[in-house]
Amino acid sequence: MSNKLSVGILGATGIVGQRFIQMLERHPWFEVAWLAASDRSEGRPYAEAVRWRLKTAIPADVARMTLAPAKPEGAPKIIFAALDSSIARELEPQFAAGGCAVVSNSSALRMQADVPLVIPEVNADHIRLIDKQSWRSKSGGYVVTNPNCSAIGLALALAPLHRRFTLETVMAVTMQAVSGAGYPGVPSLDILGNVIPYIANEEEKMEEETQKLLGTLNGARIDPAPFAMSAQCNRVAVEDGHTESIAVRLKQKAQPQEIIAAWNDFRAEPQQLRLPSAPERPVVYMTAADRPQPRFDCDLGGGMTTAVGRLRKCNVLDWKFTSLSHNTIRGAAGAALLNAELLKAKGYLG
Amino acid sequence: MSNKLSVGILGATGIVGQRFIQMLERHPWFEVAWLAASDRSEGRPYAEAVRWRLKTAIPADVARMTLAPAKPEGAPKIIFAALDSSIARELEPQFAAGGCAVVSNSSALRMQADVPLVIPEVNADHIRLIDKQSWRSKSGGYVVTNPNCSAIGLALALAPLHRRFTLETVMAVTMQAVSGAGYPGVPSLDILGNVIPYIANEEEKMEEETQKLLGTLNGARIDPAPFAMSAQCNRVAVEDGHTESIAVRLKQKAQPQEIIAAWNDFRAEPQQLRLPSAPERPVVYMTAADRPQPRFDCDLGGGMTTAVGRLRKCNVLDWKFTSLSHNTIRGAAGAALLNAELLKAKGYLG
Amino acid sequence: MSNKLSVGILGATGIVGQRFIQMLERHPWFEVAWLAASDRSEGRPYAEAVRWRLKTAIPADVARMTLAPAKPEGAPKIIFAALDSSIARELEPQFAAGGCAVVSNSSALRMQADVPLVIPEVNADHIRLIDKQSWRSKSGGYVVTNPNCSAIGLALALAPLHRRFTLETVMAVTMQAVSGAGYPGVPSLDILGNVIPYIANEEEKMEEETQKLLGTLNGARIDPAPFAMSAQCNRVAVEDGHTESIAVRLKQKAQPQEIIAAWNDFRAEPQQLRLPSAPERPVVYMTAADRPQPRFDCDLGGGMTTAVGRLRKCNVLDWKFTSLSHNTIRGAAGAALLNAELLKAKGYLG
Amino acid sequence: MSNKLSVGILGATGIVGQRFIQMLERHPWFEVAWLAASDRSEGRPYAEAVRWRLKTAIPADVARMTLAPAKPEGAPKIIFAALDSSIARELEPQFAAGGCAVVSNSSALRMQADVPLVIPEVNADHIRLIDKQSWRSKSGGYVVTNPNCSAIGLALALAPLHRRFTLETVMAVTMQAVSGAGYPGVPSLDILGNVIPYIANEEEKMEEETQKLLGTLNGARIDPAPFAMSAQCNRVAVEDGHTESIAVRLKQKAQPQEIIAAWNDFRAEPQQLRLPSAPERPVVYMTAADRPQPRFDCDLGGGMTTAVGRLRKCNVLDWKFTSLSHNTIRGAAGAALLNAELLKAKGYLG
Repeated sequence: MSNKLSVGILGATGIVGQRFIQMLERHPWFEVAWLAASDRSEGRPYAEAVRWRLKTAIPADVARMTLAPAKPEGAPKIIFAALDSSIARELEPQFAAGGCAVVSNSSALRMQADVPLVIPEVNADHIRLIDKQSWRSKSGGYVVTNPNCSAIGLALALAPLHRRFTLETVMAVTMQAVSGAGYPGVPSLDILGNVIPYIANEEEKMEEETQKLLGTLNGARIDPAPFAMSAQCNRVAVEDGHTESIAVRLKQKAQPQEIIAAWNDFRAEPQQLRLPSAPERPVVYMTAADRPQPRFDCDLGGGMTTAVGRLRKCNVLDWKFTSLSHNTIRGAAGAALLNAELLKAKGYLG
Repeated sequence: MSNKLSVGILGATGIVGQRFIQMLERHPWFEVAWLAASDRSEGRPYAEAVRWRLKTAIPADVARMTLAPAKPEGAPKIIFAALDSSIARELEPQFAAGGCAVVSNSSALRMQADVPLVIPEVNADHIRLIDKQSWRSKSGGYVVTNPNCSAIGLALALAPLHRRFTLETVMAVTMQAVSGAGYPGVPSLDILGNVIPYIANEEEKMEEETQKLLGTLNGARIDPAPFAMSAQCNRVAVEDGHTESIAVRLKQKAQPQEIIAAWNDFRAEPQQLRLPSAPERPVVYMTAADRPQPRFDCDLGGGMTTAVGRLRKCNVLDWKFTSLSHNTIRGAAGAALLNAELLKAKGYLG
Repeated sequence: MSNKLSVGILGATGIVGQRFIQMLERHPWFEVAWLAASDRSEGRPYAEAVRWRLKTAIPADVARMTLAPAKPEGAPKIIFAALDSSIARELEPQFAAGGCAVVSNSSALRMQADVPLVIPEVNADHIRLIDKQSWRSKSGGYVVTNPNCSAIGLALALAPLHRRFTLETVMAVTMQAVSGAGYPGVPSLDILGNVIPYIANEEEKMEEETQKLLGTLNGARIDPAPFAMSAQCNRVAVEDGHTESIAVRLKQKAQPQEIIAAWNDFRAEPQQLRLPSAPERPVVYMTAADRPQPRFDCDLGGGMTTAVGRLRKCNVLDWKFTSLSHNTIRGAAGAALLNAELLKAKGYLG
Repeated sequence: MSNKLSVGILGATGIVGQRFIQMLERHPWFEVAWLAASDRSEGRPYAEAVRWRLKTAIPADVARMTLAPAKPEGAPKIIFAALDSSIARELEPQFAAGGCAVVSNSSALRMQADVPLVIPEVNADHIRLIDKQSWRSKSGGYVVTNPNCSAIGLALALAPLHRRFTLETVMAVTMQAVSGAGYPGVPSLDILGNVIPYIANEEEKMEEETQKLLGTLNGARIDPAPFAMSAQCNRVAVEDGHTESIAVRLKQKAQPQEIIAAWNDFRAEPQQLRLPSAPERPVVYMTAADRPQPRFDCDLGGGMTTAVGRLRKCNVLDWKFTSLSHNTIRGAAGAALLNAELLKAKGYLG
């Protein structure tokens, strides 16, 4: 019998739910013990209910699991949640009230004052907000969230710069992969040979989440980072990997080699704690003139490393560069998983 | 016998050369009388030498034409040039010295002080630079250029704003179609399911050309427009149509409806002169939340209209919006053709 | 006031419904007077209810029309139907019973013994089956259908061969565009960089419909053509245009130039009657070694011409070749429209 | 110091050359000691000369290697060759004459009577042809080839059927990935949103190579398998993985479960010898109605397994099915590598 911690997955049949299952297949600390999705799926074997869209096979034991009702009764105490926002807003509080540690990828509660929005390399200390949640004191349950897939790559690329040089201004234009929209998601008739210059609510999320992530824990709330931030979001015909064209103004002026060193030398608690899903290097600068590129570089560090490249002077702000991050690994399932690993290391998983 | 003006095409077998032939097929003023391409093609019938990549058929009379040597002797006095930059730098001056009006799409001479870089709706008056060219006084020949495909859409979207509100700052991130790289151009192995965040020299061209286009004729030179300008260029898996995510700061503050009106009401000399290739409306604002999109909108106005959309507040500059322009029509062959029409209307074609 | 015939469109918001509206915009005989779609759309203006996916704009008068309930009461007497099969099976008989000429693109009734399945160039005489329909005698209404989008291109390529040389065996492998699956249809996550070797029920339809199309009217029924027929259907990442790799065995042996002449010389009633949507040439043989190709050739004849190419010997059957047909024009809306034009010319539209 | 066998790679900078380097990175028997490509590359470090198009990084030791002249002098005695056919025709005999075991992926010598064309699971015994080569007796050198990428997947899918049921007729239509054309290979302007129904010489290769592969060693030559074989080849917008729609007639009639068992139970010498690159299962039948698909299934068995699916009755021949094989792994570099492993196991590598 395994002595791993049992975890459940809410939204197990979606694209992010599938990534959770894939990433948990041989996880040293956690094992999948419970799956739930929509009412329609309840009671069916996972392999039948899912439209599996990954290259690796469904793990055999998961394939045979029956989808449970999406209720905290009978669920494990650790829940990965990959739900649509409207459903998450209803279910996640129920599971937290039911005593579960809800490690959520949904946007529903990210901006709630007492809910930590965390990238372990960026703002691990924000998890202390958990202790301000009313669920915590009543049932022991709580909610921790990770950011939007487009905000994670950005925040990881910005964090080393903000630490050393202090950001004053950030402008980002994204070219996002279709897997970010889930399944069935973007119709092929919309995206083949096309660019869609609009993703509902995405720009707002990127702007406010980035400022919360790089903000400061101040008692029971986060003071957002005070830099100005503007985002424009586009969808492109790419399967996985969000590319971003970024420009920044820094308070402390820096030489390019200092900026590159800030990225390449960046290490944080997940690396020091050797969390199982932490990449050796959270950010890697690629020197080739035309990289990073999603088809070739989004699996760096098992999909957990953010690649940056093309650092050059900007005529308006100070610097321009390109970032790339795997949107369903580092940008979703891997983000939540690393959060759970941080929680475990910090004693928040009992 | 036709009384149209005979024109020649340099670089007739390339993607832009093909567009010239397509757009000239039923042109009321000009007719194709001479074609030249690389040495390799010389002496061959056009239909054999070209790898035709357009949906319409090669016009029958052009199909049968034999490719001439790329020399001014025997060439018509009006030459459309769609050459690679290194070849253009050598050949275009030869044709100008030989008495030809060289209407060029190449980047070779665009930034030369006495060479007008023109979009007829934006800076028609710059053509007077022609009279400062030494070729002009000696042989009657001259060179007029149009901008890079990524600069044209931008300049058309900016011109109405600059006129009414004065630009202070411009930031643009492009998502450019593969046809912009010519043929064979971008290998499919490079772009399928991918974004390439680099196009050689493209950002420099966009920045300096936009400032020259919106600049002021000052005797024998152009004073570049004094706004700050920064560009980032990406290639995406789109056949035709460059999409751009743009942000601007304006000197005179404006309401969104004023900005939209500035675009929709924009008319200029080509419209007043009713030049044959001039679109009725050079710029059109699309109200749908997710437009413009290259696959659906790049043929607006016969490919000569720049579509804009998604105007919204920017947290860093004042306004953000999206532009779209057909890169081989308005951005190349159609640009040069409209320049030739302007030259004709202004008496520069004899 | 127009003296055109009023027509209605069932399923007006779908991809094929949109093509009907586009093709009817300037039609000399018909004008759109009534639109219906799903219950969800009823009562809304068309422009709001539709997710328009064509490059041309929605005709202004259609944009303002209100979607009617999908009931024969109040509908025009000529109905173009572009419904999902399960809905068509229910609604089309209601409209026929209500006295309408239902010109249907749906598969629901295609194989019903007394329902003509017609391509006007191939089997115009089959429309006489109409007179065997019980609706016809009671209300005057009837149902006429066109084939599946993959069967039409095939049947048009085969008809000239069958007439002159008699088909004995046909094998076809399709590579079908995503627009054939409607909207939202094929998710981008399923088709980017991919081939899907399966389209539900498509192979069965291709096989039986082709034999009915090339079959013989025998009183109140069609005797299917007696050749052997096998189809394999694949979906590829193409927006419009079904490509097919075909092999045939012929009863009368033929030289390649005879086969090519059979295609190029093929004309039929729609051409003789000069039906407005009839292409000048229903089938065109392309001589280039690598044609036809969907991106370049599917708009031949306004999308109503089937292109064939690559005729060469087959080691198993007699001949191999490639066909290409526009799946939402010739393969759907244009097919039904040409059927309606034939019905009008033959006196079946009152 | 390593006691692995030193190998060289001819054509090391191409797509297949890159796959050789990737697959040899941690190979238990072989190590890369020598690289050559075109004259243009000679003397340059590999990392500079190559346009690396794989997701994994260039192995560090290979990145630093200098490209040697493409001459047998100084080359190792085992050479993997991934050359264009015209160059291979000249160079491969030089290396064989120079005493090298040339394990070639090129088409140049495949159909030469005394050159074995081998898939180790299919016709391992054909390697005995080596002893008939004049190079062998003079210098010890020889040439062994693997088939075209489109023939390999086919032959692997057919071999188990031919063994048990004897093929009478085979028809195959391919949908081939762009990586099969090398780099730069297929221009994006040719393939985005398109199908190209032509690949030069591909159909001829598929037909004759399949018959040689499934043929019988008869002294100094191979008697080709006597079944009738017809191929049609298409290029599609897929990065890796050739999909084929296949139909067969069998001499011994079979039930579907027998055919599926023939595939799933198929094992051959590479599996018995436990060759390092041999997949556990050379052929796997996928039961889902819509598989195999290149994006999801072409990496099965590390890219060395051929996936089959969709077995169903054919109205013309007996059975139809779909096959999928990774074209640059099993179809090129992995094919040659497995041939080399077979040669080593059989004592042909000294």
